[in-house]
Amino acid sequence: MAIYFDSAATTQLDDKVIEAMYECMKDNYGNPSSTHSFGRKAKNTLETCRREIAAYFGASPSEITFTSCGTEADNLAIKCAVEELGVTRIISTEIEHKAVLSMIKNIAAIHSVEVNYVNVNEDGQVDLNHLEELLEKSDQKTLVSLMHANNEIGTLIPIKKVGDLCKSYKAYFHSDTVQTVGHFPLNFEEMGVHFAACAAHKIHGPKGIGFAYINKSITPKSMIIGGGQERGLRAGTENLIGICGLHKALSLSYSNLETDKKHISGLREYMKSELTSYFGDQIRINGCEENSLYTVLSVSFPNNDNNSLLLFKLDMKGIGLSGGSACNSGADQGSHVIRGIYPNASDYIPLRFSFCKNNTKEEVDFCLEALKELVEIKVTA
Amino acid sequence: MAIYFDSAATTQLDDKVIEAMYECMKDNYGNPSSTHSFGRKAKNTLETCRREIAAYFGASPSEITFTSCGTEADNLAIKCAVEELGVTRIISTEIEHKAVLSMIKNIAAIHSVEVNYVNVNEDGQVDLNHLEELLEKSDQKTLVSLMHANNEIGTLIPIKKVGDLCKSYKAYFHSDTVQTVGHFPLNFEEMGVHFAACAAHKIHGPKGIGFAYINKSITPKSMIIGGGQERGLRAGTENLIGICGLHKALSLSYSNLETDKKHISGLREYMKSELTSYFGDQIRINGCEENSLYTVLSVSFPNNDNNSLLLFKLDMKGIGLSGGSACNSGADQGSHVIRGIYPNASDYIPLRFSFCKNNTKEEVDFCLEALKELVEIKVTA
Repeated sequence: MAIYFDSAATTQLDDKVIEAMYECMKDNYGNPSSTHSFGRKAKNTLETCRREIAAYFGASPSEITFTSCGTEADNLAIKCAVEELGVTRIISTEIEHKAVLSMIKNIAAIHSVEVNYVNVNEDGQVDLNHLEELLEKSDQKTLVSLMHANNEIGTLIPIKKVGDLCKSYKAYFHSDTVQTVGHFPLNFEEMGVHFAACAAHKIHGPKGIGFAYINKSITPKSMIIGGGQERGLRAGTENLIGICGLHKALSLSYSNLETDKKHISGLREYMKSELTSYFGDQIRINGCEENSLYTVLSVSFPNNDNNSLLLFKLDMKGIGLSGGSACNSGADQGSHVIRGIYPNASDYIPLRFSFCKNNTKEEVDFCLEALKELVEIKVTA
Repeated sequence: MAIYFDSAATTQLDDKVIEAMYECMKDNYGNPSSTHSFGRKAKNTLETCRREIAAYFGASPSEITFTSCGTEADNLAIKCAVEELGVTRIISTEIEHKAVLSMIKNIAAIHSVEVNYVNVNEDGQVDLNHLEELLEKSDQKTLVSLMHANNEIGTLIPIKKVGDLCKSYKAYFHSDTVQTVGHFPLNFEEMGVHFAACAAHKIHGPKGIGFAYINKSITPKSMIIGGGQERGLRAGTENLIGICGLHKALSLSYSNLETDKKHISGLREYMKSELTSYFGDQIRINGCEENSLYTVLSVSFPNNDNNSLLLFKLDMKGIGLSGGSACNSGADQGSHVIRGIYPNASDYIPLRFSFCKNNTKEEVDFCLEALKELVEIKVTA
């Protein structure tokens, strides 16, 4: 038995994505910057992909810059805001992805950038009143950076409201949309974001490719410097195979959005209700039920010697899931998100179940049986 | 007829590379940062690739950092030298790849970095006496950045000599090795380089992946900031499919080095001698014959109204080649390399023929016939 419940970390490639990439590998090897027929063929594929990708988000092709990952897209936005738009203050939260949190700390240390953290409640919801207070208190050029959905507990922000607030106070708005692209219909312009990010490998596409959405009102300089690729925004020969994969992954995601959503939400609901009815108030469902990713179910189990090995024991049974973000797994310092929202975080062991279209009810049942066998509900910590 | 003579811009993927990538796409989708079995499998592949790649260059695995392209690897080196090693002077040439040239100009403008350009002769050879003079004249912390082989005219630098000079004067040495990795046996430590770069797509691997070699005496910070991937050096989920492709491409290159070299050198020699015997001194062979890439043949034809359309006319006949670097093709300002070395550059139209293992004598013959038909030797410019 091999069960994969870690699709928020990365996903299995869709066979149709593999097919699209295979075709590109076989027949489309030119350099998009070359002017001969081999290059023009590659350029044509590149720009067709860009145009069709942009259309999913109500964006212009020139607003889509291909990057090597979501992290690069997030970095690019923050760097652009500070170094080019002259932002001297960033408003964010302590529960952002490391691609944002670490980048903000890094850039604030280099330039004299003030960083304000908005309050977040125990469900991971951003305190909009506090956000407005912060926006109000200073007329410094400000960037608001709030992730659309938290990757560990799934809580969604009311992105349009945040966008409107930013507009009122003339702040730039960056949202790490890595967990929502391909899972929700998104129109970046309507959402009021200036910067957004995508990573193909979160939606059954390949690792190593993503994009930055940068609103056309902004013309950033490059983070990677060299040739004139990506309209001078991102030097380096374009990852055409990856871009074909990203394009196909997005096209599949948006074609099957409702069907996949129904299936995945169903699995999540089923697991949640079964867990709740069996473990009762010994466990805690993390996040905000009304405004949540349908792909992520974060559950905290009592912290004790037995449960601290839960992930390991589930892994032994062939079930792969994580405590939080894979990007932090190596660090082994627990989840900064959970620590950031729960005062008594160390009383609990968080497990993040994240589902995809390939998961089945049988897999959920197998996992539930495993949990009933393995979890000890007594708190000894 | 479709003939590809632009392998210095990018190469056709080898079928065995496609196979390796396909296998990874099908069976190895875990996130290398995840601790469960799916993640460990990916991590194992990642580190096996790194270890075996490092071994080709006499390097330790920890000296290899995967990047999204050669440009990123070059950028990383220069940024590290200035922002972390405290370099206040860079010695380079005017004929470097844009990934180096533009990055140096960019970083010199931000930090107060002095830039000195070494003299280069008409064959593209670096004046070592001038280099030594420059090294001698100041005891500022210095980075020497000289590409191993020029991508447009093919001239190789005597890299070990340059490395020794840098050592004597305690300068850091970065070499853009994108055109020599996989074509020559390289031992970075013995060459005396602190930083080197690779792009998989130059050696029948995929676009979107490369590596930076960073000598173990140096511990740089990250250019892309977020999770702890690549020992904290390069955040973002690793491009495992690309890394498998790079690994296979390098393994094929080094397994078949002598056979491929003989074949490719043969084609280059044949084309050169046929061109010379037909066009005589109406044409000029660019670069340095004794110290040249065996993959690149740069030939200048007289500049006139007819010949200025040569690339276009060859393209019409199905022959793809370029005037210089693809990274500059979009810019259409001609070659900065040719301008950099020839005082009368505008009297000539440079064509860069770059060959690979897949090219045949028949293709060269077809191209020679086309050139005989198309080239006008009269100078009218």
